[in-house]
Amino acid sequence: MNKQSYAIIGTGAVGGLYGSQLQKSGHDVHFLARGDYDHIKQHGLKVESPWGDTALASVSVHQRAADMPPCDVVCVCLKTTSNALMPELLAPIVHADTVIMLMQNGLGAEEEVAASFPEAQVLGSMCFLCSNKIGPGHIKHIDYGKVLMAAHQPGRDQKLEQIRQDFTSAGIPVEIDLSLRDARWRKLVWNIPYNGLSVVLNAPTDRLMAHPPTRTLIRALMLEVIRGNQACGGTLEEAYADELMAFTDRMKPYQPSMKLDYDAGRALETEYIHRRPLAAAAAAGINLPLIDALAAQLEFLDTHNPNREPAT
Amino acid sequence: MNKQSYAIIGTGAVGGLYGSQLQKSGHDVHFLARGDYDHIKQHGLKVESPWGDTALASVSVHQRAADMPPCDVVCVCLKTTSNALMPELLAPIVHADTVIMLMQNGLGAEEEVAASFPEAQVLGSMCFLCSNKIGPGHIKHIDYGKVLMAAHQPGRDQKLEQIRQDFTSAGIPVEIDLSLRDARWRKLVWNIPYNGLSVVLNAPTDRLMAHPPTRTLIRALMLEVIRGNQACGGTLEEAYADELMAFTDRMKPYQPSMKLDYDAGRALETEYIHRRPLAAAAAAGINLPLIDALAAQLEFLDTHNPNREPAT
Repeated sequence: MNKQSYAIIGTGAVGGLYGSQLQKSGHDVHFLARGDYDHIKQHGLKVESPWGDTALASVSVHQRAADMPPCDVVCVCLKTTSNALMPELLAPIVHADTVIMLMQNGLGAEEEVAASFPEAQVLGSMCFLCSNKIGPGHIKHIDYGKVLMAAHQPGRDQKLEQIRQDFTSAGIPVEIDLSLRDARWRKLVWNIPYNGLSVVLNAPTDRLMAHPPTRTLIRALMLEVIRGNQACGGTLEEAYADELMAFTDRMKPYQPSMKLDYDAGRALETEYIHRRPLAAAAAAGINLPLIDALAAQLEFLDTHNPNREPAT
Repeated sequence: MNKQSYAIIGTGAVGGLYGSQLQKSGHDVHFLARGDYDHIKQHGLKVESPWGDTALASVSVHQRAADMPPCDVVCVCLKTTSNALMPELLAPIVHADTVIMLMQNGLGAEEEVAASFPEAQVLGSMCFLCSNKIGPGHIKHIDYGKVLMAAHQPGRDQKLEQIRQDFTSAGIPVEIDLSLRDARWRKLVWNIPYNGLSVVLNAPTDRLMAHPPTRTLIRALMLEVIRGNQACGGTLEEAYADELMAFTDRMKPYQPSMKLDYDAGRALETEYIHRRPLAAAAAAGINLPLIDALAAQLEFLDTHNPNREPAT
């Protein structure tokens, strides 16, 4: 059997790392890069990682999805702030057998992509990693890296096991989750408080955890996420908040991705990380007032971000 | 009858303005100034105000309360962040007939001062003014200025009418309120959201009001304050939130006092403005989660304030 080919949509901290690992292990990998296209075309990709440093002098990079060859698996590694572009972006490369795997934060994107491409198999992935793009085509992977995968449509997971094997062979730790919904909500229990408060309070995780009032607030936010999951029929329990608090206490000081986005003047992923869970909970009949307040603060700061790069 | 004499404890934006007005109208006024003592001793007080500019070349200024003469009325114009010092500070100047009038923000300070000085008559004042100290002994009064006065102990208000007349004669708009509790809570309906969010989101009132999500959050915070007041037996109603929103829409862009404090590196009045109302509501059996979250954020920012002046 031929090895599966991969399209990596978005060659940044996530796509650059995982795509490079897949190419190194012998897969045909095609990268979509918009702003960094020229640089990557000329210089390839460079990844510094505890998994081993990588320099790929030659990669198949494309500036427009329409120029990409058909691939077995399309990994969407864009920030969710670009998700409105997804139907147009993916249309040229999605065929009857294509698997679309969203490697993004937040809630609700799989529903949207499945609605746009009903013929495709849709998977969701949560990437637990600390990785930054530090220059065009230059990724610095600092720590972690596990990918948690799940099928969006029950029963439509025929390619999931093969993808798991591909990632594992490429040196990427993978776990399969049986419930995408619970997996997404579990990651939100972390992302909602830490991504949000790190921006609002301009602080990394360790300082937020060391201050008793914000520590209490973090836990209260986590419990709201868990209540939201339960209202939506999920199985998370309150004890998970304490597990995550203990996990975060053991982590090195960490700047969540939303903090890096804010500091770099990029748009914040508030819509998919905060607003979609709020909307899902509201549809199930409950309000999550602390998350709502945090989302309002983030939207204000996003709108008035003094680091914002001028619109191009 | 001799005119009443006044001790002004704290010669800043509030005490400097009202004390100067009282002295101009012929009262014996004695100022306590700690850091600015030398400057005021030498140069007097200068007040720029829409009520008319004032330069008092010679004022009775003291660096220690123990050196002040007995006065009929002691006006406490300190930030509440200094309230722990109040028993010691006021002890030398409070006698059987002294009236102590707290001209401060927040909730709960009258109870404390009444417990420390059971023989004194305690009044509370809310100052609705926009005024800054822009240099030692130099006050810039920008707008507003009304003082709302009320007795802390029902029935112990014998001097209140005389004080009202003194302030009125000095050109200061005064209203008497029959319920100090409701008056304090009414001011909190404004102070809790605007003081808090202006610090957390680094923004003046007009920008907070112009952004729909923060506008919604402001109203939600106001409704929590009103719920707190009601739980404590007060008479505020929800419609008051909409009145205050409309009032704030008509205001000029405004930096609340807590924002000025934060930017100047001064300690924040979170304890009396946010925590005391939370404690009062909790004692009455209800939680106010949005105010609690905001207080936690303010305490974090206060602790990590990069503008903080070094401790002396």
